[in-house]
Amino acid sequence: MSHPLLTLTTDFGPDGPYVAALKGIVLGLVPGTQIVDVTHRIAPQNILEGAFVLASIFDAFPPGTVHLGVIDPGVGTDRKLAALRVAGQWVLGPDNGLLGGVVRGRTVEGIWEIANPALRRATVSHTFHGRDILAPAAAHILGGGDPAAFGPPLPKVLCLANFEPRPTHDGYVAEIIFRDAFGNLVTNLHISQVQQIPPDAWSIEIAGHRIAGLVRTYADRPPGQVVALINSMGWIEIAVVNGDAGRQLAAGPGTTVWFHRSRTA
Amino acid sequence: MSHPLLTLTTDFGPDGPYVAALKGIVLGLVPGTQIVDVTHRIAPQNILEGAFVLASIFDAFPPGTVHLGVIDPGVGTDRKLAALRVAGQWVLGPDNGLLGGVVRGRTVEGIWEIANPALRRATVSHTFHGRDILAPAAAHILGGGDPAAFGPPLPKVLCLANFEPRPTHDGYVAEIIFRDAFGNLVTNLHISQVQQIPPDAWSIEIAGHRIAGLVRTYADRPPGQVVALINSMGWIEIAVVNGDAGRQLAAGPGTTVWFHRSRTA
Amino acid sequence: MSHPLLTLTTDFGPDGPYVAALKGIVLGLVPGTQIVDVTHRIAPQNILEGAFVLASIFDAFPPGTVHLGVIDPGVGTDRKLAALRVAGQWVLGPDNGLLGGVVRGRTVEGIWEIANPALRRATVSHTFHGRDILAPAAAHILGGGDPAAFGPPLPKVLCLANFEPRPTHDGYVAEIIFRDAFGNLVTNLHISQVQQIPPDAWSIEIAGHRIAGLVRTYADRPPGQVVALINSMGWIEIAVVNGDAGRQLAAGPGTTVWFHRSRTA
Repeated sequence: MSHPLLTLTTDFGPDGPYVAALKGIVLGLVPGTQIVDVTHRIAPQNILEGAFVLASIFDAFPPGTVHLGVIDPGVGTDRKLAALRVAGQWVLGPDNGLLGGVVRGRTVEGIWEIANPALRRATVSHTFHGRDILAPAAAHILGGGDPAAFGPPLPKVLCLANFEPRPTHDGYVAEIIFRDAFGNLVTNLHISQVQQIPPDAWSIEIAGHRIAGLVRTYADRPPGQVVALINSMGWIEIAVVNGDAGRQLAAGPGTTVWFHRSRTA
Repeated sequence: MSHPLLTLTTDFGPDGPYVAALKGIVLGLVPGTQIVDVTHRIAPQNILEGAFVLASIFDAFPPGTVHLGVIDPGVGTDRKLAALRVAGQWVLGPDNGLLGGVVRGRTVEGIWEIANPALRRATVSHTFHGRDILAPAAAHILGGGDPAAFGPPLPKVLCLANFEPRPTHDGYVAEIIFRDAFGNLVTNLHISQVQQIPPDAWSIEIAGHRIAGLVRTYADRPPGQVVALINSMGWIEIAVVNGDAGRQLAAGPGTTVWFHRSRTA
Repeated sequence: MSHPLLTLTTDFGPDGPYVAALKGIVLGLVPGTQIVDVTHRIAPQNILEGAFVLASIFDAFPPGTVHLGVIDPGVGTDRKLAALRVAGQWVLGPDNGLLGGVVRGRTVEGIWEIANPALRRATVSHTFHGRDILAPAAAHILGGGDPAAFGPPLPKVLCLANFEPRPTHDGYVAEIIFRDAFGNLVTNLHISQVQQIPPDAWSIEIAGHRIAGLVRTYADRPPGQVVALINSMGWIEIAVVNGDAGRQLAAGPGTTVWFHRSRTA
């Protein structure tokens, strides 16, 4: 591959030496790898948020991209590490639910356990497998290596239950899984689950607030109004026009959102 | 171009999937593009701050650099997107004032409206034109494309009135437009507007505080003293030696600063 | 060098134009240089924290890497700038203690004062030598230039006294020098100073709290327990399992930590 491309999604925080150390290992093994920092501000150990972010960026990247996720509260235990080939791209990380987001609605082409000690750093720490095992594993793929060298194939990756909304008799019980820098509240309900229903037919409840229908874009309503729309990543999002929905509704990740199809629709 | 170079200035925040998605689109279209994140922490929808940052970094970059700014409160409305060629570099973004900063004191070589649907992603969202229209537009220039393909030329870009200080009978009424990580307060008054006057001749008022003259560097005064100086980007800056001017003066973006030429100078 | 690699460690903050301006200068001089942001969130003017971060990432990078550190409270005074060749890599920055961390336990291969006006930008500001002197100096090395062109060799770089713990009759008086995004508290005591002693023999005191022995990894103890361990960078770290040690112990950089070898060990 002439332009190896790696993305990183972690909860390391932006302040310390961890991210740079991981990058140094990759760049020593595959010089010239281009690295995109997706985020290092996943809330500490929030696997669900990491799975959401990976699923949200996936379609924007070209074939051959390697996505490395490190949100790893089980480091040092017997949780597995895995490499997943999906729709021509790669996702590597602990098999704790983090890899489960990109699987939804996409074609899994292979899953391997990352278990081969020969593809690790010579000395592996007890607390930083991102640098010592996952960075060399990413470099293995970035350098054109065979994934079968990692270890045995795995039948599936772990998917977190609350990554999917729960269907009800007239819609869904969904959940906020991400609050962005503007205060927009992104739910786990996806366009593929609502596109059969007319946008006006939805009635949405969040934090004691009722929203009638989905709008097309923020500018369709006056400033200050609470709206729901299909966002640019394909998720249903609750927003306040020119405002901060998280603050105005006192809501955030974990907040329940009810979607009802109205009787007249 | 053998080393395509792109900078990004946005209000997307550093936490979410938006920046990475935009980069993925560019890298899929022009593999190997080098991307410099200027900042993704422009205060939400603060066009003035974005215009200031773009103007401040411009001279440090080599010819051919493409600067993409996305602070776009009007996304989904009929605001225009534009590509500006200035002094051998490119600036792309919404024509809402964001592009107006780099124009000050530099040679505009061309402005085009970004309007050609063929240079967009196949599907354009209603809320993320940065990824769906501006990223492919930046890739078009990074890949050596003809700007005339974007659409009709535009006569000028929008410049925000408060990007320029207001002249008075004995100087200027200026405004803080940026507070940096050290608490230094950067005004919109530029070296080109003060260099005819001896540095000692200025008397400066901010937040009830009076400063006599401009110093050469922070170390010219003892710790704790409030000073004014021409900063490294060419702006007049209010600082506290080894301290935080923003906190000490309770001042920040929007604070008025009076510059008076003293009678005796 | 086919893949010039530069890392940046500064206190510029992530919000402003300073980091990008510095990068623009390097990329104009050595196009295609790959740049890794270690951190721009060193606490303003905290040289000790910068020295720690540089020392912590160093071993992860390949030979030929240039590390540029800019924490420079003395900018504009007569403090020296220096280029240090250590173990096949380069560290450039002000000689104020920032370069002293990587020297510990590694082979110094050369030190040069960065003094040659011909290797600077044409115009040098009084307040931003990172961009105007150090960025071109880094580019000089990245482009394969001779370090002797910088200026006279220097006999040594400055090392901060509190970068090293103080030996006592039964161990060390150490200090927290870094608090990471998880709240883990990293001390200045290094594995090389404790590895002769059985891990169980240590008794550790911090903020009125006593910890018995070093554990191997976080998962060795139940959630909520305060533990000490050798972290992935080789430093002794105080952590709370699945918690935030900084908050729980009300401790952070500067907090004293006593290490006692127990009598029975």
